[in-house]
Amino acid sequence: MTPFRTTRRVDFCDTDLAGIVHFANFFRYMEAAEVAFLRSRGLSVQLAFEGQELGFPRVSASCDYLKPAHFDDVLDIDVTVERVGTKSVTYGFTFSLQGEAIARGRVTSVCCRVTEHGLEGVEIPPRLRGLLSVES
Amino acid sequence: MTPFRTTRRVDFCDTDLAGIVHFANFFRYMEAAEVAFLRSRGLSVQLAFEGQELGFPRVSASCDYLKPAHFDDVLDIDVTVERVGTKSVTYGFTFSLQGEAIARGRVTSVCCRVTEHGLEGVEIPPRLRGLLSVES
Amino acid sequence: MTPFRTTRRVDFCDTDLAGIVHFANFFRYMEAAEVAFLRSRGLSVQLAFEGQELGFPRVSASCDYLKPAHFDDVLDIDVTVERVGTKSVTYGFTFSLQGEAIARGRVTSVCCRVTEHGLEGVEIPPRLRGLLSVES
Amino acid sequence: MTPFRTTRRVDFCDTDLAGIVHFANFFRYMEAAEVAFLRSRGLSVQLAFEGQELGFPRVSASCDYLKPAHFDDVLDIDVTVERVGTKSVTYGFTFSLQGEAIARGRVTSVCCRVTEHGLEGVEIPPRLRGLLSVES
Repeated sequence: MTPFRTTRRVDFCDTDLAGIVHFANFFRYMEAAEVAFLRSRGLSVQLAFEGQELGFPRVSASCDYLKPAHFDDVLDIDVTVERVGTKSVTYGFTFSLQGEAIARGRVTSVCCRVTEHGLEGVEIPPRLRGLLSVES
Repeated sequence: MTPFRTTRRVDFCDTDLAGIVHFANFFRYMEAAEVAFLRSRGLSVQLAFEGQELGFPRVSASCDYLKPAHFDDVLDIDVTVERVGTKSVTYGFTFSLQGEAIARGRVTSVCCRVTEHGLEGVEIPPRLRGLLSVES
Repeated sequence: MTPFRTTRRVDFCDTDLAGIVHFANFFRYMEAAEVAFLRSRGLSVQLAFEGQELGFPRVSASCDYLKPAHFDDVLDIDVTVERVGTKSVTYGFTFSLQGEAIARGRVTSVCCRVTEHGLEGVEIPPRLRGLLSVES
Repeated sequence: MTPFRTTRRVDFCDTDLAGIVHFANFFRYMEAAEVAFLRSRGLSVQLAFEGQELGFPRVSASCDYLKPAHFDDVLDIDVTVERVGTKSVTYGFTFSLQGEAIARGRVTSVCCRVTEHGLEGVEIPPRLRGLLSVES
């Protein structure tokens, strides 16, 4: 799959006293990149789909940090759908700055139906699976 | 009214590249102090009260910054109920470090009923008004 | 002065359990808008200027909230330089969504020289004052 | 090693529109727990140690989410030093609520000397290694 690419400019408040982007913020950036990817396919992390309200809470997230990012850097973020399981989807993210990779992350979400009583795991509807899996 | 006092230790991620607490985080601290104050009176920013679900969205917030705060500082935060109106409540906050004031803030919230269609402004129920107004 | 306009898309993580953008995040948005405005004039909130390293810590910030903002909203943010004093600059911000104002904010920063011993307030250099004041 | 335990109360602003703690915030909580652990041993994530200024930027971070956390929950966070390498240290974190594990995380940091030119990886000084490794 050709990765989907989006960009993110580092806000001043995303840095910490070490002068670099705080490591937790890469997870916020991943989510925004995932949302941009989903939008490019007509989807969202919260969506009404075939009469059901679906959400995608995370079951795992990880990031390896290769180089720091700084205030006002414009990061390229490549999003790849690494795996679409029965109930879960795994995204891979590569952050790069001027062509050099600075971080790599991965997030796995499960498909859930939003009910009165909270979230309930469900199988990813076939048409949604198709939209996630198709080559861009 | 004698202020209600709580404390907040500055997290590493609350600082920015200038080496000080980012100014927006003082508003997060104010909210946590308000929640602690409300808890001390058996209340919350989200509460079921006499059969209604109430919320308190903010209508205004401000802060004056006198001195910077740093990583690992333990800030004292004094909370005062400045005014309880018909539908709104205004809190004042004083941040101090080792007895010296470093910031002063104010937040006004309106009492709303949580409905299916969103939030709807309502009068503060008399018993709730009493709990907010009473001397600690 | 004709306001400088920038946009901001609301991230999922900028919302809170009330389903709306958390009030403190409007201050993060104001700062990013200020940075975009300064960039449009060749400036930054951190800049080397005529041989001095300058920073602009905030001395006050406020926001009035008129309507809530939601996940994925694309907010227009208008930035106006309200006042350039001897040592300080005050920005005004209007947030709007599809032409309707939803929040108004104001931030005052002081010009400081970054020294070994911390920040020291200084007069805004004349050329910098000119760049801030000029009609866009 | 007996884990070091600290607690964290969930702030309102740590939640998102799904009504639960946003997944990125668990990384902020891990860092605060690490800082509390280091403090308990007379250390910090930023420290002057035997004449050198040391920092501990992260090289990797991960979290598995088992159950959601909610506003005002008081989470127990257990910190374990999983491994002290030549230049790096790996911490394990278990989040639990009323005795039930809700998330497990891991963070690896490298020991760096803070220089004029940025951060430079160095071996963990023997005495510091001892303080990290000792049974509590």
